[in-house]
Amino acid sequence: MKKKAHIILGIDPGTRITGYGIIKLDSGVISPVDFGCIKPPPKYDLQQRYLIIFEGVEELINKYEPSSLAVETQFMQKNAQSAFKIGMARASATLAASKKGISIHEYAPKKAKLAVVGSGSASKEQVQKMMQKILGLKEMIKPQDAADALALAFCHAHQIQFEQRIKGKHAYV
Amino acid sequence: MKKKAHIILGIDPGTRITGYGIIKLDSGVISPVDFGCIKPPPKYDLQQRYLIIFEGVEELINKYEPSSLAVETQFMQKNAQSAFKIGMARASATLAASKKGISIHEYAPKKAKLAVVGSGSASKEQVQKMMQKILGLKEMIKPQDAADALALAFCHAHQIQFEQRIKGKHAYV
Repeated sequence: MKKKAHIILGIDPGTRITGYGIIKLDSGVISPVDFGCIKPPPKYDLQQRYLIIFEGVEELINKYEPSSLAVETQFMQKNAQSAFKIGMARASATLAASKKGISIHEYAPKKAKLAVVGSGSASKEQVQKMMQKILGLKEMIKPQDAADALALAFCHAHQIQFEQRIKGKHAYV
Repeated sequence: MKKKAHIILGIDPGTRITGYGIIKLDSGVISPVDFGCIKPPPKYDLQQRYLIIFEGVEELINKYEPSSLAVETQFMQKNAQSAFKIGMARASATLAASKKGISIHEYAPKKAKLAVVGSGSASKEQVQKMMQKILGLKEMIKPQDAADALALAFCHAHQIQFEQRIKGKHAYV
């Protein structure tokens, strides 16, 4: 029986740049599928940008058919105005997924850093470099938002492996 | 030539209750079409609620084919956590509209109150009573969120009338 592969889509939403990273977890091996960013034209108003994010994520879902989406936990160090905008951008991304019945998983930034670098206080640059190494990529992952999105997807892959191990289903990873 | 009627959808988004109100502006006469609320089951998680709001607004749009959507301007007296949730709920509603190419119009709460009651500092109850009177409804508009949504739609109808008057196109309202 062919072991089940997981396609995981990581998203780092923002009104200017929404990073995405898609990885495959197959038989315990993690490999890169695609990464990049959705960048609505700056001259567009916010509503148009949200629609571009929504449609962009929808396109990625149709193309790669991920089984799950990983996003950052709501982090609230920003002010209300920023939180509102991030909320709108994030809903644009997650709605595209929940419309398709794709499960959404939240990870605290620290947890993603810990999974990738081994330290919850790692810098963004460390995450970027480590993700490149883990995925065996020759070139640096750009933009930073794409590396962050890949880190979230990677963190979810780790979580899947962890859950399967504790259930004694390691053979199916 | 038949004068063009405007169907306006007002939305007051929230994760618990999303009020909606639909009015028709035809030949200068404003009449109620429908109002009520989208109330996702409280046991549902936030992602599921956003999807219900999105699909609920999509259903209203398919049913009544509004030409425009009216929402409150981002108001920021709340904390970042609330702002984030309101942002997500609001995007769920507005995305359903922008996907269909429906124009989105923002009004400050004070402007909507001014249009309905004649005072920007009117209470929610005053708005509720006045909207009932304006629309010639026998029963009180419930919940409050539906009255607020109707007030936003009414405010946009006023704006359309105002713009047509200053363009000298009053005959087409």
